[in-house]
Amino acid sequence: MGVYSNFKRVDATGKVTGEAKYTDDLLPERCLVAKVVHSTISNGLVKKIHTEKAAALPGVVKIVTCFDVPDIQFPTPGHPWSVEESHQDVSDRKLLNQRVRFYGDDIAAIVAEDEVSAARAAALLEVEYEEYEPILSPAAAMAPGASVIHQEYPGNVLKKTGFKLGDCTYAEALKEEGLVRLRKNYEVPRVQHCHIEVPVSFAYIDVNQKITIVSSTQIPHIVRRVVGQALGIGWGQIRVIKPYIGGGFGNKQDVLYEPLNAFLTQQVGGRPVKLELSREETLACTRMRHRMLFSVDAAVRSDGTLVARKAEILSDQGGYASHGHAIVANAANEFKQLYHDEKALEIDCATVYTNLGVGGAMRGYGIPQGDFGLEAMIDDLAACIDMDPYEFRLKNCVKEGYEDPHNHIKFHSYGLEKCMEEGKAFIHWDERRAEYAQQTGPIRRGVGMAIFCYKTGVHPISLETAACRMILNQDGSVQVQLGATEIGQGADTVFTQMAAEVLGITEDKIYVISTQDTDVTPFDTGAYASRQSYVSGKALVKTGKVLVKRILDYAGEVLARPAESLALVKNQIVDKDSGKVLRSLAEVATEAFYSLQHSVHITAEETSHCKDNTFASGACFVEVEVDIPLGQVKVLKIVNVHDSGKLLNPQLAQAQVHGGMSMGLGYALSEELLYDEKGKPLNDNLLDYKLPTAMDTPDLHVIFVEEEDESGPFGNKALGEPPAIPVAPAIRNAVLHATGVAVDSLPLAPQKLVRAFTEAGLISKGGEGHV
Amino acid sequence: MGVYSNFKRVDATGKVTGEAKYTDDLLPERCLVAKVVHSTISNGLVKKIHTEKAAALPGVVKIVTCFDVPDIQFPTPGHPWSVEESHQDVSDRKLLNQRVRFYGDDIAAIVAEDEVSAARAAALLEVEYEEYEPILSPAAAMAPGASVIHQEYPGNVLKKTGFKLGDCTYAEALKEEGLVRLRKNYEVPRVQHCHIEVPVSFAYIDVNQKITIVSSTQIPHIVRRVVGQALGIGWGQIRVIKPYIGGGFGNKQDVLYEPLNAFLTQQVGGRPVKLELSREETLACTRMRHRMLFSVDAAVRSDGTLVARKAEILSDQGGYASHGHAIVANAANEFKQLYHDEKALEIDCATVYTNLGVGGAMRGYGIPQGDFGLEAMIDDLAACIDMDPYEFRLKNCVKEGYEDPHNHIKFHSYGLEKCMEEGKAFIHWDERRAEYAQQTGPIRRGVGMAIFCYKTGVHPISLETAACRMILNQDGSVQVQLGATEIGQGADTVFTQMAAEVLGITEDKIYVISTQDTDVTPFDTGAYASRQSYVSGKALVKTGKVLVKRILDYAGEVLARPAESLALVKNQIVDKDSGKVLRSLAEVATEAFYSLQHSVHITAEETSHCKDNTFASGACFVEVEVDIPLGQVKVLKIVNVHDSGKLLNPQLAQAQVHGGMSMGLGYALSEELLYDEKGKPLNDNLLDYKLPTAMDTPDLHVIFVEEEDESGPFGNKALGEPPAIPVAPAIRNAVLHATGVAVDSLPLAPQKLVRAFTEAGLISKGGEGHV
Repeated sequence: MGVYSNFKRVDATGKVTGEAKYTDDLLPERCLVAKVVHSTISNGLVKKIHTEKAAALPGVVKIVTCFDVPDIQFPTPGHPWSVEESHQDVSDRKLLNQRVRFYGDDIAAIVAEDEVSAARAAALLEVEYEEYEPILSPAAAMAPGASVIHQEYPGNVLKKTGFKLGDCTYAEALKEEGLVRLRKNYEVPRVQHCHIEVPVSFAYIDVNQKITIVSSTQIPHIVRRVVGQALGIGWGQIRVIKPYIGGGFGNKQDVLYEPLNAFLTQQVGGRPVKLELSREETLACTRMRHRMLFSVDAAVRSDGTLVARKAEILSDQGGYASHGHAIVANAANEFKQLYHDEKALEIDCATVYTNLGVGGAMRGYGIPQGDFGLEAMIDDLAACIDMDPYEFRLKNCVKEGYEDPHNHIKFHSYGLEKCMEEGKAFIHWDERRAEYAQQTGPIRRGVGMAIFCYKTGVHPISLETAACRMILNQDGSVQVQLGATEIGQGADTVFTQMAAEVLGITEDKIYVISTQDTDVTPFDTGAYASRQSYVSGKALVKTGKVLVKRILDYAGEVLARPAESLALVKNQIVDKDSGKVLRSLAEVATEAFYSLQHSVHITAEETSHCKDNTFASGACFVEVEVDIPLGQVKVLKIVNVHDSGKLLNPQLAQAQVHGGMSMGLGYALSEELLYDEKGKPLNDNLLDYKLPTAMDTPDLHVIFVEEEDESGPFGNKALGEPPAIPVAPAIRNAVLHATGVAVDSLPLAPQKLVRAFTEAGLISKGGEGHV
Repeated sequence: MGVYSNFKRVDATGKVTGEAKYTDDLLPERCLVAKVVHSTISNGLVKKIHTEKAAALPGVVKIVTCFDVPDIQFPTPGHPWSVEESHQDVSDRKLLNQRVRFYGDDIAAIVAEDEVSAARAAALLEVEYEEYEPILSPAAAMAPGASVIHQEYPGNVLKKTGFKLGDCTYAEALKEEGLVRLRKNYEVPRVQHCHIEVPVSFAYIDVNQKITIVSSTQIPHIVRRVVGQALGIGWGQIRVIKPYIGGGFGNKQDVLYEPLNAFLTQQVGGRPVKLELSREETLACTRMRHRMLFSVDAAVRSDGTLVARKAEILSDQGGYASHGHAIVANAANEFKQLYHDEKALEIDCATVYTNLGVGGAMRGYGIPQGDFGLEAMIDDLAACIDMDPYEFRLKNCVKEGYEDPHNHIKFHSYGLEKCMEEGKAFIHWDERRAEYAQQTGPIRRGVGMAIFCYKTGVHPISLETAACRMILNQDGSVQVQLGATEIGQGADTVFTQMAAEVLGITEDKIYVISTQDTDVTPFDTGAYASRQSYVSGKALVKTGKVLVKRILDYAGEVLARPAESLALVKNQIVDKDSGKVLRSLAEVATEAFYSLQHSVHITAEETSHCKDNTFASGACFVEVEVDIPLGQVKVLKIVNVHDSGKLLNPQLAQAQVHGGMSMGLGYALSEELLYDEKGKPLNDNLLDYKLPTAMDTPDLHVIFVEEEDESGPFGNKALGEPPAIPVAPAIRNAVLHATGVAVDSLPLAPQKLVRAFTEAGLISKGGEGHV
């Protein structure tokens, strides 16, 4: 079908019929069940855990507490790893923690014969705490006298970074006459990934004494490394298997419970132990998108020239470092990369420990937050000078040829302005901006937009490496083994298309091995950073070329012709020049296996160390209708326009965008993890945590601007995360357009909007009516 | 510990604790159960099968009969395969057979929700047959007017071959004056392997539409090919997984029920279906060691010179070809290779279809049969000229430097005579031969011996190819992936030792992947022909050298030194000359994974096409006590002496010999599959089929003569099958020595011995007493 085609998902049927096996489908017989016991305070110290009653319960096999685990702190983020200590991730937690840093911290675990016994035992543990004042904001954390959450970080600041660009300081830039200045604060909340499948793994010690962990993870090879670190054993003594998984969105790019699971099987003599989180634990105790606070200060000329900006960004890390400062640093980069100031840009950002849920990787990795702060500010700036925000963006946004001055990432292909044009036309921007300019009454409409750019993979900030192996079968079909993981996004399908293209073998004869098994699967860091079709795709292409060469070399032997005169086209060995079919690949492959003269099992395996990167970009345009008295925003029309290079599979690409837009809608309108004054989660369940449903979702429109990207293996670049980025600021800006009210924090929930509209005088203070 | 050491079995603990998973341990949930329905006649045609009653039974999912299967005949033997049609195996059966060729032939199959429903349904099928006269011997099969068992073979002869050696014909050689001539018939019975685990597999259609079969097989890559042939689909559409298996001995070198299992999952929409044989089915319906009939004619000079031999060997194939004629051809070769005639050797052999159980591969592959016929004859010849059979053997047996004139297999190392010396000394041959020469009374003792030679693998008769892959981990440990299979013989352990030796990495850091998975495991034909430590070992060595080179190349980069100046010794990169440790392998490996300059996942994969072979040899010496009135033989002392090159693991080698000797004891004394006059099995269960137990087994002694074999990867050669070969003829010859009675067929069961002793006049005809 070709590499650019709507080839049907290779796992479509298997996922519908149930043949696709997920971790929980693969449990061995008589698997023990583990239950994690979480702290019921958010800041303090476990002084003692009374286990007697729990231990006496029938069915309880083992109880381990924070006093029993190895004295090893380990990192959890799914980064490639670095041999240089200064580039390694923060190691700030143990398997179970005596020092409790958030409500729900892991302090003990029960292993039992069954779920019920484990849960009952967990409830019978009696914990004595020494409790400290909960720290519930970065400000409180940085205040003098605040308790120290991690002793290695006495001021509770995990990291501070900043940069300055331009010819002068921000203060100097402000001296220009006639500048219009904006000073505002923006804020984005903690939200959760809400993947369908909760984190689940099971572990056992195999015949070869390896601790074997089957886990719903995005990053099997990284899980292996982190488990080794956490247990203090050689990484080769661990084997990680990743079956089909029900979504991850970055939450499964953190190695959170696999190390504990591995430890628990060690504690029960290697018997299999399952560790599955409940939905409530998933919401409260796993990773979340960081809450961030943006203090911005910006100056423009009345002609729309962006002269200078200064921003301070505080990232509320919660109790543990996880991906930590990398995420706010990414948010800060969006300020630098997406718009350019004539005179000065100053950014400072800090990541601060608090006693709340832990921030980690989530689709967009800081950019959804940064893009909200930035794109809200851009609309507010345009409003200050009464300029159309589209025109204001066009004037100041990143242009073709841009290269980041620090990490030197470039647009190898540039489609941002085209995306803006397409979106503008789709939403009838000019007509609607005019039409909705002077509305009155309770129901008002508006249009808004936001743009973004996003890099592809992590080079050169971090390592980009990927390996691939291909195995030729007797019938001319091929297995493709990749460390890159299918996590629902369609990786196996596009890899099938790529392999067919590079090999000259039809897709029906390509078998991408979906399960990763670190013992035999080539190394790859996994599914994150929208990297796989770009980075792992290069490894596939490199390996495919080697395989084809080996096949043609063998065919040359069989046909007594120079291999250089041959090509592999549609499962046939052909004369390169004439295209004449000389022999089927199946015949040559069978000969290679069984030849009495020269038998060889033709395979190929290569690593591709990727030293490229490229920016993807795009825009969201949205039309909303705001019910002012109800504080309700209805999305009438929404489109995402993406510059993601050539599309490998337009249908899958569209599905990817649909999913991202849906996440953006929740981020914009309803989602937020809430805590009480003690730091206890208030809505750690899917009834109270307001994830949009199909009923809440309007028709989602997608437009692609396909610019061939020379740096991608097939002209492609990032698409996995981008769709989630621009939706929330576009909706915020549309509400601004509809109502004139700038709401500066997410989500745009009814309570908040009613309050804002009331303050703005659109609703009378008594709540009786509206203006 | 070194490659020649008693390194502990790598699976010892896992097999004791139960962590080692066998096929039945791995069944997926809600796996359907298949039951094969077997014919209750031995020769005929299925005219109709009434399925209505069975189909109406609750729990029955699908019934397929011989009228429903594809019209494809396929071969079952575990041979490598050949692209030349003339060298391909005989395809003479379908998935289910309408033409019934033995009692127990497969005529239908039931798939049900559970075992009980399947068995009940099987019992409810009503079968109408057209019955023919059963053919129960080769003679009957070849008689004029016999019904034709396979239409492709009108005379019921599967194949006839023969050869002549020497300067004249046998008839001409006989013209010499003064020759002593012997004309006799010998016979060996059908016996069964009696592996602990019965044949079991389960199959399902996976997400990628591959038919996936988990099977207790010795030959996963061959199973894949045969299933493809049987179903008429591309071999790459099949995936075979081999977990731990509970023995095979050649029975699992036949692809008997995996194709049907694959077909059955196709018939139920890809749902998993398990097909496990009962012990009774295993005994009656799987493969057995061929019954063979030897007609020999031989002439010696009175000085002990073997002048000429002529032998006709008939192999009773049973209903299907399976490994067929290759086995009797091997038996014939033993006549040629083990002794050399001064003037002439003429051998003719034929494989004949009958309506009995099907002969196939069983430990020794024809040589146990041939060695019995040959070594009984040798003792009888020695007796004719009143010569010590040891001296007679020494005078005429194969000598150092021998090369087979047809296939050119040689002794690259030769230890046969040393084996004979060692065995002779151990059993106190000369003393006992003299001591027991003139016995009377009911209890008499004797000593006997037998020798053998055995090739290593199948080159050049057939293809010998093997591939291996090695994968380096961050901690400097390595996975070794081989298509060669662990079937209980200790393959994983000796491969671990070999890998440690060739890599310079300690055994604790070598992980041989025990499970083969044809999708990702390098190609290898599997466990048979005592080939793996020789043939697959070469692939391991070849691959290991490539891996070491890649490691040292990388270490050279890291250390900025020429790779040629480095070596890998005990997990350390050292200076080749001084031995000074420069860096640990773990550090270099970690650097290779995570280097920002040059990241590479170091692996290696190579095929070794083996074009070597070498003879192993050995002897068995035994002392027996015969209770003449009871016809009972008690083995007082027994030793096997083996010339199998250098031993990789003496303890495992000894265990291998123990197992083979135990099989030899059963073959000698008690085992035989019996049939009634209609061809119905009489003793297809372990109560009536007399397998020796631990209680029946004397102390087993083993001596090794370790001659380094230059052609083996570590000086090693065949040891898997040889131990089973010489025991039965040695015991037969010891009984001859004890009683003067030459019993010319196996087993030496009490009934037969009493009859023979009575005929010989040792027991009075009335059975009242003895002479």
